[in-house]
Amino acid sequence: MNPVVLGIDVGGTNIKAGLVGPSGELVAKEAWPTEGRLGPREVIRRLAVRVKAMAERAGVSWERVQGAGSGWPAFLDLPSGVIEEAINLGWKDVPVAAWLEEVLQKPVAVDNDANAAALGEAWIGAGQGAGSVLCVTLGTGVGGGIVFNGALYRGASAMAGEIGHLPLKPEGEPCTCGRRGCLETLASATAVVREARRRGVASPPGGPAALTARDVFALAAQGHPVAKEVVEEAASWLGLGLAAAANLLNPEVIVVGGGMAEAGDLLFVPLEAEFRRRALPRVARFCRLTPALLGGSAGVFGAARLAWQRVGR
Amino acid sequence: MNPVVLGIDVGGTNIKAGLVGPSGELVAKEAWPTEGRLGPREVIRRLAVRVKAMAERAGVSWERVQGAGSGWPAFLDLPSGVIEEAINLGWKDVPVAAWLEEVLQKPVAVDNDANAAALGEAWIGAGQGAGSVLCVTLGTGVGGGIVFNGALYRGASAMAGEIGHLPLKPEGEPCTCGRRGCLETLASATAVVREARRRGVASPPGGPAALTARDVFALAAQGHPVAKEVVEEAASWLGLGLAAAANLLNPEVIVVGGGMAEAGDLLFVPLEAEFRRRALPRVARFCRLTPALLGGSAGVFGAARLAWQRVGR
Repeated sequence: MNPVVLGIDVGGTNIKAGLVGPSGELVAKEAWPTEGRLGPREVIRRLAVRVKAMAERAGVSWERVQGAGSGWPAFLDLPSGVIEEAINLGWKDVPVAAWLEEVLQKPVAVDNDANAAALGEAWIGAGQGAGSVLCVTLGTGVGGGIVFNGALYRGASAMAGEIGHLPLKPEGEPCTCGRRGCLETLASATAVVREARRRGVASPPGGPAALTARDVFALAAQGHPVAKEVVEEAASWLGLGLAAAANLLNPEVIVVGGGMAEAGDLLFVPLEAEFRRRALPRVARFCRLTPALLGGSAGVFGAARLAWQRVGR
Repeated sequence: MNPVVLGIDVGGTNIKAGLVGPSGELVAKEAWPTEGRLGPREVIRRLAVRVKAMAERAGVSWERVQGAGSGWPAFLDLPSGVIEEAINLGWKDVPVAAWLEEVLQKPVAVDNDANAAALGEAWIGAGQGAGSVLCVTLGTGVGGGIVFNGALYRGASAMAGEIGHLPLKPEGEPCTCGRRGCLETLASATAVVREARRRGVASPPGGPAALTARDVFALAAQGHPVAKEVVEEAASWLGLGLAAAANLLNPEVIVVGGGMAEAGDLLFVPLEAEFRRRALPRVARFCRLTPALLGGSAGVFGAARLAWQRVGR
């Protein structure tokens, strides 16, 4: 029987897991609520029960599973496999790699979620075959990861690719990182909603508090002038941020993923225009800007790839 | 006899060359005017005569020279070893690697000058031993290079590390690249002189046209308030640019070189303050910001390292 690995993508809300073959073949997949409030021990214990049941249902004996990879919404100390802090989960100092190895009885690789998603897109998604890939994920925040020659580039303290914290507007809005005017304050879903509310974009039935980035994009698609302006501004800031990153990294491909990337041309047309205007011609000419291909599964595939790399394949 | 290689650093004004051992031992060194107006054929022909004479004077037989590396003030197509454009020299479409191999009868590696300097500093200079080094050169422009695990990271079209063209002030001064508000327009020697003139900093005997960045730094060191303001502003912009680059690359070391870096604390104190203020704490904590160690010789050593890598050492 062909060997597989387990790819686990832990989010603030849901956990997704899949069994994946050496060339990215998806054998089984499942998702369930994270329930971070139960604490890391219990979340990991339940995770083990879930994935073993998933393997059994898929007719995959546990012996066929070579190892596991996992992406976490957290700052990690990679050499020790310890979560230093997972803000959305309210966890600190959790030895996730060791605990997962204990419950799964397999070798386990860990990384942060943005890195896992970047590796997934570079492996079998929109960045496949490229020597250098910058992957950006637009959501509540703006995350990123860098893949060179098929491997994650992590930097000195596993922070490489944090494009969300490019300081683009020195005296801009405060950012969750404690600084001001980071790309994340200008081009995330949160920023789109904030600007739309500020400019009085009409709210859905639930009142102003219920307005989502999806609502703003829907209004923009229907031609609402203020919603359109808000979306185009966010896209322009993102174009500037990606141009800055590209002038430095000269990547072959920039993959844009996350919920907002599903807006298609509404986002990509102004984004690409600003990117081409701001990037050096010799950089822009050799760079492909493209939507992500794997959608919400990028993290599972990337985690699986981490597992294959961990077990030496 | 121990083998050596030839490191050649071609500048707009001078050419520097050295014979360098496998651990960076400098056996001989020489410099002479570039005379780019003579055209590439003649410059390369004279270069060969010079370096052979240098080897002879140093008692190094030509057989001991394993190969040569060279850094050029140019955009290059690396796979073919062709200079596509060297603006300062007025050259276009020059197959420098092939021509150098012809006159030297040795294997030759080529790269741009900023990359060569970065590799030199990472090899035996201020970045020695670090896994990831970003090297920035402050001069007429702002150049840069990135070294991961001892090897240059060049990106998709040999443009990686072009930190001088980080767009930091979207509606700022026009840049030589055709864009606006690049770091180079805010923190180069050219920018310092421009701002000092604009604010009426008293000129040296030669009149306003003779004012140099060195003059402005000298005045600032003597306490001239406007000169000091100009220097501090340039340092702050550089701090912002380095923080942006560091948030993306998470480098272990950032090496700051070039003429301006010789200003010492006058530059580094405000630079470091702004860098620490703008970089993510987890990035800044693991990043050392340091002046270059090799001064004007970084390019020769880096070119020599390219040669060693070319001949497989």
